[in-house]
Amino acid sequence: MPKLKEIAALLNGELLGDGELEIAGVQSLPRAGPGEIAYVAKGNDAAAAGSRAGALVVARGSVVEHANRVLVADPQLAFALLLRHFHPRRPLWQGVSPAAFVAASAVLGAGASVAPFAFVGEECRVGERSEIHPGTALYRDVVIGRDCLIYANVVIREGARIGDNVIIHPGAVIGADGFGFGRAADGAAVKVPQVGRVIIGDGCEIGANTCIDRSTIEETALAANVKLDNLVQIGHNVRIGRDTAISAHTGIAGSTRIGAGVIMGGQVGVADHVEIADGVMVAALTGISGSIKSKMVVAGIPHQEMGEWRRNMVLARNLAAMRDRIRMLEKKIKEMEEKE
Amino acid sequence: MPKLKEIAALLNGELLGDGELEIAGVQSLPRAGPGEIAYVAKGNDAAAAGSRAGALVVARGSVVEHANRVLVADPQLAFALLLRHFHPRRPLWQGVSPAAFVAASAVLGAGASVAPFAFVGEECRVGERSEIHPGTALYRDVVIGRDCLIYANVVIREGARIGDNVIIHPGAVIGADGFGFGRAADGAAVKVPQVGRVIIGDGCEIGANTCIDRSTIEETALAANVKLDNLVQIGHNVRIGRDTAISAHTGIAGSTRIGAGVIMGGQVGVADHVEIADGVMVAALTGISGSIKSKMVVAGIPHQEMGEWRRNMVLARNLAAMRDRIRMLEKKIKEMEEKE
Amino acid sequence: MPKLKEIAALLNGELLGDGELEIAGVQSLPRAGPGEIAYVAKGNDAAAAGSRAGALVVARGSVVEHANRVLVADPQLAFALLLRHFHPRRPLWQGVSPAAFVAASAVLGAGASVAPFAFVGEECRVGERSEIHPGTALYRDVVIGRDCLIYANVVIREGARIGDNVIIHPGAVIGADGFGFGRAADGAAVKVPQVGRVIIGDGCEIGANTCIDRSTIEETALAANVKLDNLVQIGHNVRIGRDTAISAHTGIAGSTRIGAGVIMGGQVGVADHVEIADGVMVAALTGISGSIKSKMVVAGIPHQEMGEWRRNMVLARNLAAMRDRIRMLEKKIKEMEEKE
Repeated sequence: MPKLKEIAALLNGELLGDGELEIAGVQSLPRAGPGEIAYVAKGNDAAAAGSRAGALVVARGSVVEHANRVLVADPQLAFALLLRHFHPRRPLWQGVSPAAFVAASAVLGAGASVAPFAFVGEECRVGERSEIHPGTALYRDVVIGRDCLIYANVVIREGARIGDNVIIHPGAVIGADGFGFGRAADGAAVKVPQVGRVIIGDGCEIGANTCIDRSTIEETALAANVKLDNLVQIGHNVRIGRDTAISAHTGIAGSTRIGAGVIMGGQVGVADHVEIADGVMVAALTGISGSIKSKMVVAGIPHQEMGEWRRNMVLARNLAAMRDRIRMLEKKIKEMEEKE
Repeated sequence: MPKLKEIAALLNGELLGDGELEIAGVQSLPRAGPGEIAYVAKGNDAAAAGSRAGALVVARGSVVEHANRVLVADPQLAFALLLRHFHPRRPLWQGVSPAAFVAASAVLGAGASVAPFAFVGEECRVGERSEIHPGTALYRDVVIGRDCLIYANVVIREGARIGDNVIIHPGAVIGADGFGFGRAADGAAVKVPQVGRVIIGDGCEIGANTCIDRSTIEETALAANVKLDNLVQIGHNVRIGRDTAISAHTGIAGSTRIGAGVIMGGQVGVADHVEIADGVMVAALTGISGSIKSKMVVAGIPHQEMGEWRRNMVLARNLAAMRDRIRMLEKKIKEMEEKE
Repeated sequence: MPKLKEIAALLNGELLGDGELEIAGVQSLPRAGPGEIAYVAKGNDAAAAGSRAGALVVARGSVVEHANRVLVADPQLAFALLLRHFHPRRPLWQGVSPAAFVAASAVLGAGASVAPFAFVGEECRVGERSEIHPGTALYRDVVIGRDCLIYANVVIREGARIGDNVIIHPGAVIGADGFGFGRAADGAAVKVPQVGRVIIGDGCEIGANTCIDRSTIEETALAANVKLDNLVQIGHNVRIGRDTAISAHTGIAGSTRIGAGVIMGGQVGVADHVEIADGVMVAALTGISGSIKSKMVVAGIPHQEMGEWRRNMVLARNLAAMRDRIRMLEKKIKEMEEKE
């Protein structure tokens, strides 16, 4: 069991209190008991009142009073470190299961694991220490980097390139055909074959049951460290810049370009062939029908700058008052006209 | 083939007509023929006109005229019983397939079945008579109760607790990591490990390809008899009260609390950290951005009380008329000013 | 390597230029090099400026200047043919894998293939040359036509009927239970068994992780050549007419009838029990709460005819101006009243 002084060192924090205190684990602030450590979010000192935690991680400058504190720059990041320390991940599977299928031409790096019922197709390459979980299917010529975690029942279609340290959650589908059709003379949809591929950068995380379509002929590409939540749809030929995070149920239509460091709430819809600048923040349920050329916060369907949207929303919610004022004016005008 | 008097007994209903009539099956009202029974929804007597059904299940007080009727309190519930009676479920698989993987430390209850290509991890427990279908993966330490039906290609991550009589439809993902990130000094997203778990109460039903994320450190919890449709997203640390039903494509963001007996339409979005009271009804496509403290019906983005939303919607659809009235007033004022 | 004159013949096009030119492949317009062919979309001649492509496919009547052109009626359809020609699909698997499960009573047509870890249940029939990919599960009595491509980890529940030349993308779930519940006296949801089935016509394409629910007792039916994008939800008892295309994240609630040749954008929601006429076009993010009786373009929540919606949207975005005009009128009236 680590001592509080060791925890402080791990967090690169300043220790105030009993460094010899033994810490059994990390917990949420309301649940942490005497042998446990919890964290107080920056600016939320009030939440610490009455905590029974044995020690608290707080931000430098915090006025929380507690016998045992570790002061750090960012308590939430420290919390992430503590979770990792006290809950090391245990691999689901070691080595290559005889109940997996690995094509003769596939190459597995040292320490890579393939669980039962995983399918690794022809010419695939799986990097060192990467894990392929049960029921996951890699089609022909899929390349996966080092230290990746590909959860169960993921499907990655042919030709995809996955970087290092990528996490793909269960049921995600990478590289299915983009939704591309021409129209025959009689109006019937004619499939346009989708022969491009998907490229996913280092450190990306792809949510459960999320879909990233292959491009018609070029690439659908996520730069490094992109984070996609569950049930997200990324259309063909979309490009997403690094560190962008996109919440659940959001859909990005074909050929759209999303910048770096963009943050999108859930259930956002983005039209095809638009561009969104670096650092744009998009509220949940926004509909983006045109390009956003500079960093701003947007909301609404179709999207507006957030402040404008808010002002408009207040007015939209008070249309009855506006109508009543018009009625009153009409009445007064009528009275005036009658007086004349 | 059961006789109508036996059907009436099964439904605990009152028989009017020929109790000796043999009933071959249950059908929809428009399709039912002479040897079949159908039901007339409460308050919809008109739908029975011209029915060729051999017998009808109708509500007590119904004025439907038909030679053979079974009067019951709730025809729809009676219909559910008839469907179950005439279409008993046939299990997909009996026993434990040699083509399944069951870890040595897993425990299967009497009569539990595990189909080919299912993966049952270390320390899992599967209750009596529960079925695990093909391609389903249970990670370490998943506990499943009695009489559960876990369809094909479901993934349940480590530590989840599933009650008795639970149905999980194909492709659902239970316990994937919540979407939790801190921000490094350079703005890059830093993953917060998600070490909590998912708890699903007795009698719940989880739709196809629906995702329920594991909590950061506490629990994501569904009380008894919660019904989730397909493609629903439940964020980490969400809690949902008993008998709540949520339709397809709805997303509930992290740490939100949903009461008991809540009914939500499809494509609803609920923000994080809000509370929704027991019995609230939410129209499809509603966006809920703040707590709802008492039972009411809501609609709109952001949500309003339904009546208010309707009145506002009528006004919003008639803005042109409002603008015309303003124009008319402006014209009159101008005329008055010119007269002076 | 084909010569340009052979390409022209393949496309049934008119050749202008060097028929002996050898064409190594097809590329996008900006990327195509001297040995490659690209296409110029109809009405987009400007895009061809500066192209390095060895040859261009252009529409008849196009004014693009290039040494080597193939004139066709529809360049996009020609592009589809070129993609198919230069990128013939390679089957993932040949024959029936010994690592698949095929029930004794299942029947496989000549040339059908079943990949490892696929599950083909009792009484299933798979047509000639159809492919069943890894991890896909066909429940009892599923019938699949000829030349179908059923990608990995698809689940098709019992009794479904799939036509010829159907493509089902990874993770799609066909025939899961519809979301149908009655209410017990105490308000608890009581499951209505779903014993109907799903019928999918020839030439349909079903997107990744899309769900099509089985009907309560009749059928959920897609006519021929329906195209569904990823993550779409089709409720129980829905019927969709031929050549209809529906984009990602759209949800169709139970018992709704969609006509032929309908085109829907993404994230559309359609209420239950409504009818949508042939040829209706629905903008992304539209909410349809009632029937649409004739061909038109609609947008908005709830939906309006597109032109009306646009005009209304302009007004809704300018409520502040409307309020200011009312304020001005109020001020003037006040001044007039004071003068009297």
